[in-house]
Amino acid sequence: MSKFEDKAKMWHRFYKGKLSIIPKVSIRSLEDIAVWYTPGVAYPCIEIERNPEKIFEYTGIGNFVAVITDGSRILGLGNIGKAGLPVMESKCLLFKYFGDVDAFPICLSTQEPDEIVQATKWIASSFGGINLEDIATPKSFYIFKRLTEELEIPVFYDDYQGTAIVVLAAMLNSLNIVGKKLSELRLTVVGSGAAALGSTKLLIEAGVKAGKIIMVDSKGIIYDGREDLNNHKSEMAKITNKIGARGNICNALEGADVVVALSRPGPGIITGDMVSSMADKAIVFALANPIPEILPEDAKKAGAKIVATGRSDFPNQVNNSIGFPAIFRGILDVRARGINTEMLLAAAHEMAKLAEEQGIKEDHILPTMMDSSLYPRVAAAVGEAAIKTGFARIKISYKELKENAEYRILRSQQSIRLLAKEGFIHHPPATS
Amino acid sequence: MSKFEDKAKMWHRFYKGKLSIIPKVSIRSLEDIAVWYTPGVAYPCIEIERNPEKIFEYTGIGNFVAVITDGSRILGLGNIGKAGLPVMESKCLLFKYFGDVDAFPICLSTQEPDEIVQATKWIASSFGGINLEDIATPKSFYIFKRLTEELEIPVFYDDYQGTAIVVLAAMLNSLNIVGKKLSELRLTVVGSGAAALGSTKLLIEAGVKAGKIIMVDSKGIIYDGREDLNNHKSEMAKITNKIGARGNICNALEGADVVVALSRPGPGIITGDMVSSMADKAIVFALANPIPEILPEDAKKAGAKIVATGRSDFPNQVNNSIGFPAIFRGILDVRARGINTEMLLAAAHEMAKLAEEQGIKEDHILPTMMDSSLYPRVAAAVGEAAIKTGFARIKISYKELKENAEYRILRSQQSIRLLAKEGFIHHPPATS
Repeated sequence: MSKFEDKAKMWHRFYKGKLSIIPKVSIRSLEDIAVWYTPGVAYPCIEIERNPEKIFEYTGIGNFVAVITDGSRILGLGNIGKAGLPVMESKCLLFKYFGDVDAFPICLSTQEPDEIVQATKWIASSFGGINLEDIATPKSFYIFKRLTEELEIPVFYDDYQGTAIVVLAAMLNSLNIVGKKLSELRLTVVGSGAAALGSTKLLIEAGVKAGKIIMVDSKGIIYDGREDLNNHKSEMAKITNKIGARGNICNALEGADVVVALSRPGPGIITGDMVSSMADKAIVFALANPIPEILPEDAKKAGAKIVATGRSDFPNQVNNSIGFPAIFRGILDVRARGINTEMLLAAAHEMAKLAEEQGIKEDHILPTMMDSSLYPRVAAAVGEAAIKTGFARIKISYKELKENAEYRILRSQQSIRLLAKEGFIHHPPATS
Repeated sequence: MSKFEDKAKMWHRFYKGKLSIIPKVSIRSLEDIAVWYTPGVAYPCIEIERNPEKIFEYTGIGNFVAVITDGSRILGLGNIGKAGLPVMESKCLLFKYFGDVDAFPICLSTQEPDEIVQATKWIASSFGGINLEDIATPKSFYIFKRLTEELEIPVFYDDYQGTAIVVLAAMLNSLNIVGKKLSELRLTVVGSGAAALGSTKLLIEAGVKAGKIIMVDSKGIIYDGREDLNNHKSEMAKITNKIGARGNICNALEGADVVVALSRPGPGIITGDMVSSMADKAIVFALANPIPEILPEDAKKAGAKIVATGRSDFPNQVNNSIGFPAIFRGILDVRARGINTEMLLAAAHEMAKLAEEQGIKEDHILPTMMDSSLYPRVAAAVGEAAIKTGFARIKISYKELKENAEYRILRSQQSIRLLAKEGFIHHPPATS
């Protein structure tokens, strides 16, 4: 990791962050100012006052997303509050680069759930969508639920929904390779945080039989009646583990077709012996960051057929960054009222399909972030699903959605490259 | 005005607003992502966690300004709430173009004073400064006072402070032309809103004798003991009008050297006869927008020596747009703790000085928005005043401040021009 430490510090310091706000229009003269400021600007205001929907025509609100955190669970760094701002800026950078979404980082100075909800509601009138980020569980679930219910714009909870989409996409292609079906899986989930809960729920929506899922937290297997469960785990206990399994992580992995590990502690909690005890053609997603629950070579040695991690330096990276920029592109392009399960499933299926078209194999189950066709396709799939389910205010075809997204993202990247070429923005030198 | 109506509507609609968020850094590969996102971004976070001041080194916070409104008094349009968003975007456009300040528009969904304060405080941790905009009086004074006292970052109230600076600058040069002194002025102020109160207070700080000022509101001359005065007018009544004048606007203008009109009703409330009753070499600032209290030709005909308005299509435009981008540039470049009177006075004096160097005459008392030397000089003057008064966290010379600001603003404008030249952003065609 240390090869990135000095470089990341140096370059972050050099640029003072990663984002800048730039006009979409140019000023050459006092006459331009009269169009874009007074007296001209009064007319769009009057139009919006008459018809509030026109705010999407006359302002940038339809492409503004707030990336909101309270800093209570930043990456693996824990509760560092405002010191999490660089991560929010990174998210905004990816939003722009891969989705042409104008995202702005907001690191709130409160960590009280009701205050986070209130702050978000007060500023939401300036945004077309909200992306909740790195807020500690379980309060994040409460915040997400309230904002989803109380706001009229889409609210995305990336740790919960974004990870789930990519896990599902990876799962679809892995099963394709090993010739198993979602509906027949014995699935074990290690972890009970936002990503684990979100992934489990989406996998159930996609076809995994809930009763055949065994979830494990740091105390062992989760079952109905276990006394130390919070509401969220308790809810899962009621629908999963119908075989009534008890015990620890070893027991949970025995005979499983797939393990999806999204645990806090990470390193070493899955051993080779556990993997060996799994079913034939075992699939191991060891997604703890930065150090997976088991290293890919150890899992492979123990008999795993397919291994995925969260890391970019191993094959099969499961990373929500291949999701959120495209998902918001799709949401914003159809001006969706919200985000439903069908939209999440559509995103996952489109990701899986693209990798399949590229040719999937054991060490290539997902597109990477550098696959330029990925984002417009996923955006279009999400937009299409929103239209089909009645969540869209704008209705256009998949083809148009995809072409629009392609054009926007390409133009955005071209403009960044132009600025880089002419020396207005810079690249760090390649790491030696 | 109608020549701008169609054009402003068409172009606002064409671009969907005026702002975009753009990376300051470029992404070419997964390795770049590893520097700017995970794992790299964790290291700046750790540094900031250890030393919170480093947030200014590793993020863009030091150049982020929130342009905050509740939409309760947008331009001359009144309380239009969220429909005021285009105006906030315009402010951000000017912030960037003339000051290279990364300003983001926030139109709050509450209009309750305490809630506006609370919302601003919760999001302030993501910004280097706050610009309050178009909030109705008198609640705006309360909001401004509380935020100034409770936040550790500078809070600027543009209608109150920004207008005052430009009025003072215009006054200094006008007096220079007619050969009168601030300390000897009989000044009449028409209006009692934020701009009128702010201008009166700053003129007093600059040397006008408070006792020789007569303020007039819609009910007539303001005097100590008048029963219908709110707190803010009452405070002014105690220090102004020591001659005990009574009556209406006619009485208030009689014998005055200068009238500064910043009234709500505007058109026609100052007549030629009133101007004729003023002292020799009368100075008339008729600043109501869009229609001045008296038209320049009428004021001139009635004997005014110098006339200024808020309009760009008459000589001597008094417009706060020549202020705020530079003022924030200066504030941010020295990382000021707040904004004090000395900083406001320094900005006004620098504006006046620039016009004087260009050669002042009756119809040229101020620089215009297109004077490129204006912004870096005002920025440097504000920064220098902050340093002298102990309000600055960074201490560098006027020369360095000016050169830094020049470089930043030039680069920013060049990058916008480059994008325009290559077709990534567009100009509206010239109005015929």
